[in-house]
Amino acid sequence: MRDGEQTPGVSLTPEEKVEIALALDDLGVDAIEAGFPITSSGEANSVKDIARAVRDIKGSVKSEVCALARSTQKDIDLAADLGVDTIHVFIATSPLHRKYKLRMSKGEVLERAVRAVEYAKSRGVNVEFSAEDATRTELDFLIEIFKAVEGAGADRIDIPDTVGVMSPPAMRSLVGIVVRELKVPVSVHCHNDFGLAVANSLAGIEAGAQQAHVTVNGIGERAGNASLEQFVTSLHFLYGIKMRINFSKLRSVSELVERLTGIQVPPNSPIVGDNAFSHESGIHVHGILGHPSTYEPLSPEAVGMQRRIVLGKHTGRHAVEKAVKQLGYDVSKEELDLIVAKIKELGDKGIKITERRFSKIVAEVVGETGVRLMEVPKWTVITGKGVTPSAWIEVRLKGREIRSAGWGVGPIDAIANALKSIDGMPKFRLSRFKLNAVSKGTDAVGEVYVKVESDGMAAEGFGLSEDIVEASMEALVDALNKVMTNENGH
Amino acid sequence: MRDGEQTPGVSLTPEEKVEIALALDDLGVDAIEAGFPITSSGEANSVKDIARAVRDIKGSVKSEVCALARSTQKDIDLAADLGVDTIHVFIATSPLHRKYKLRMSKGEVLERAVRAVEYAKSRGVNVEFSAEDATRTELDFLIEIFKAVEGAGADRIDIPDTVGVMSPPAMRSLVGIVVRELKVPVSVHCHNDFGLAVANSLAGIEAGAQQAHVTVNGIGERAGNASLEQFVTSLHFLYGIKMRINFSKLRSVSELVERLTGIQVPPNSPIVGDNAFSHESGIHVHGILGHPSTYEPLSPEAVGMQRRIVLGKHTGRHAVEKAVKQLGYDVSKEELDLIVAKIKELGDKGIKITERRFSKIVAEVVGETGVRLMEVPKWTVITGKGVTPSAWIEVRLKGREIRSAGWGVGPIDAIANALKSIDGMPKFRLSRFKLNAVSKGTDAVGEVYVKVESDGMAAEGFGLSEDIVEASMEALVDALNKVMTNENGH
Repeated sequence: MRDGEQTPGVSLTPEEKVEIALALDDLGVDAIEAGFPITSSGEANSVKDIARAVRDIKGSVKSEVCALARSTQKDIDLAADLGVDTIHVFIATSPLHRKYKLRMSKGEVLERAVRAVEYAKSRGVNVEFSAEDATRTELDFLIEIFKAVEGAGADRIDIPDTVGVMSPPAMRSLVGIVVRELKVPVSVHCHNDFGLAVANSLAGIEAGAQQAHVTVNGIGERAGNASLEQFVTSLHFLYGIKMRINFSKLRSVSELVERLTGIQVPPNSPIVGDNAFSHESGIHVHGILGHPSTYEPLSPEAVGMQRRIVLGKHTGRHAVEKAVKQLGYDVSKEELDLIVAKIKELGDKGIKITERRFSKIVAEVVGETGVRLMEVPKWTVITGKGVTPSAWIEVRLKGREIRSAGWGVGPIDAIANALKSIDGMPKFRLSRFKLNAVSKGTDAVGEVYVKVESDGMAAEGFGLSEDIVEASMEALVDALNKVMTNENGH
Repeated sequence: MRDGEQTPGVSLTPEEKVEIALALDDLGVDAIEAGFPITSSGEANSVKDIARAVRDIKGSVKSEVCALARSTQKDIDLAADLGVDTIHVFIATSPLHRKYKLRMSKGEVLERAVRAVEYAKSRGVNVEFSAEDATRTELDFLIEIFKAVEGAGADRIDIPDTVGVMSPPAMRSLVGIVVRELKVPVSVHCHNDFGLAVANSLAGIEAGAQQAHVTVNGIGERAGNASLEQFVTSLHFLYGIKMRINFSKLRSVSELVERLTGIQVPPNSPIVGDNAFSHESGIHVHGILGHPSTYEPLSPEAVGMQRRIVLGKHTGRHAVEKAVKQLGYDVSKEELDLIVAKIKELGDKGIKITERRFSKIVAEVVGETGVRLMEVPKWTVITGKGVTPSAWIEVRLKGREIRSAGWGVGPIDAIANALKSIDGMPKFRLSRFKLNAVSKGTDAVGEVYVKVESDGMAAEGFGLSEDIVEASMEALVDALNKVMTNENGH
């Protein structure tokens, strides 16, 4: 949590941090680094809140709560007073950091580190010691300082690759040397500047390290830290190492951190990304339908995910046929050929096949018009400075025509409130709203994904438009139709 | 390009594909896999266009253009007729794929592969052969088929880790064995399901492979492929291996692919992410100001990036002082203390310190009101179904008050058009528009980033609001103010 919150632009409230800490404990992590108390009084208070919240959890095995401290009495006293189990004491050891940041000699750094560890131990907590920028430190000095702090009582020694410059073979070699020289458990802390943080953490474990510092979604300073979900999944599924981790909760913890930090998980993110278990191309989908293992390294359900078949120009007949059946249509061979050809034609023009577009194509070919339980044939939204964001909508709901209006903090909120106030509309709350737009100009195509919860049921909706407000409206209508279809047992 | 476009939901037009291919050639890649011609006539045409466009480039060293083909005469003939340099022939070899997808015996697979390679060679092209799902294939059968296709004339042999199940040590071992058995160059093709694609590609190179298949931004099926930018940067900066890559173009190629595919590069992406060279926490910024190497693994300029200091609750005095000076203020020690305290206070509440918020804080403390060259004190935007997205704005521009209106494909486009039609406003075009919003409800905080180009000068702008239209307006105003400040020599 500490390095994750150091992500540029991320700032969490004390309540949000407690929420994340409890989710991490529930996921089954061994230790939670709750914060760096000296940075502000708010930070110190939230470390205290987390320590208390985790201590109050019922049940036998709990995560250890830890606070970060520089190698000074002031930092250590502050951390110790907050009720944490462990203090993570650090000092920089590399020539660059000694010269340009600390302006201290090797001897001064060594003495400061030993005194800090001794003092922290005297406060009755576990002590983990980190040599910041260890991987750019002279090896003999690194071993010297590690042995000295071990002698001073450190319970764990951590090797941070602070600027992420290690390759896996280099990391394996360094950690192996350190492990052989020490008696206490060794930990690694890898940054992802070259995209190697997870591989370097695994290399550390291969060489005998017993702990790795990781962050949810791999967030952190610059390119971030080793990702928790990638690291634990690799250890379990590729190395066969047992941990306390409850893998089915990986996705929900990832979503929680995404929502609270605002740092989006990209679709192609391993394990927890929206595409991690999605399949589009013809050959792949054909294989998946034959046997999921042909193109899946592990079962999506094992990590709290679901398989998704995405239609597109690479989609083969097999997948299109299955999707058509799911819409409730029974088509002839000729009709299926026509649908496949239309999908390829749109794809070649660079047009994505959304679920809505797909049902339109099918309806066209089969000669019916897809009738939806709810449509919003007319709507107007206004917003501005000095203008309350407001929406006026005309809804066709199960045959009836209804007008409604609503307002909110922005145009989407106004639309949702206008929908909610309609009699006969299912009660709903948005559990997830995600908007994505990247483009060259102001005519960007916005893609909106929503997850709606209604009466214990969840439905997803998608929308795509050059108008980001329209894309959001489409997504909401899509999700609400799914809710109503399920309610009616369609 | 082929595996990148297989990303679920991604679909590129032929023109867009040529644009990417030319950018890749300019970046200095050795080979471009242009597409999989058999999937559709549009795909086949775009492979032809790419082959022609690259052939027509002036200059001596060009990228090799390659097309993918299944091991059938039909696929190979189609690819050969398109004028590519190389055909990449593949067939699946693993027991799972033989049984559930191909329904073929080992002998049938072997025979089909050999015939395909012989036939492709007879068409006068280079031939690369891939054993799909090689990493889950029986080792003796894999070696047998590789030796057989080498004997049939294959120029390169590729080892795909199709479902991304290898660890770096396993990959190093497998590639080492294959390299020792073959005379022709060996290639690797790694998927990122466990986050190890780059590390596994590097492990392949360590074991003697001479080529790796990678994709820009690491896009591709499921969790994607090894990322081009992470792989080449690791090879160059960590392994000291020379390539033709022009590193200063990495960022622009990444931006091009992000824009055309719509797959956002997350801020914490290594090398090319917005945060890859951003620094927020007190200790880190202090170090960076002393010597950039303290917290940077390589110079941002080397890969076409820029350093960014982000203010937040972890920001120390040093960085705040520097940022205040950049705003043109000279503050006392007491004023600086007050500014630092306000930033921490907001941060503890979970409020991000945008550039705009920062200048407001400074202006409050110093007792002045920050006067901007351009403000939009009043504006109204309307959109809907059956409503042309339109904007009415009241602008204060260098002391004058002006009203303007505009319309467009969506609300943001309408605002931009209203701004553009104002006399005295710098001529501008948006070279980048990125909107991000993740939240629990419809009251999501949207974050907008824009890059505006005006008269050969570029300026960035940021906006943050619960109203996504307002966030976009703020970002545009911010960027245009920067453009005008530079024009006036401020």
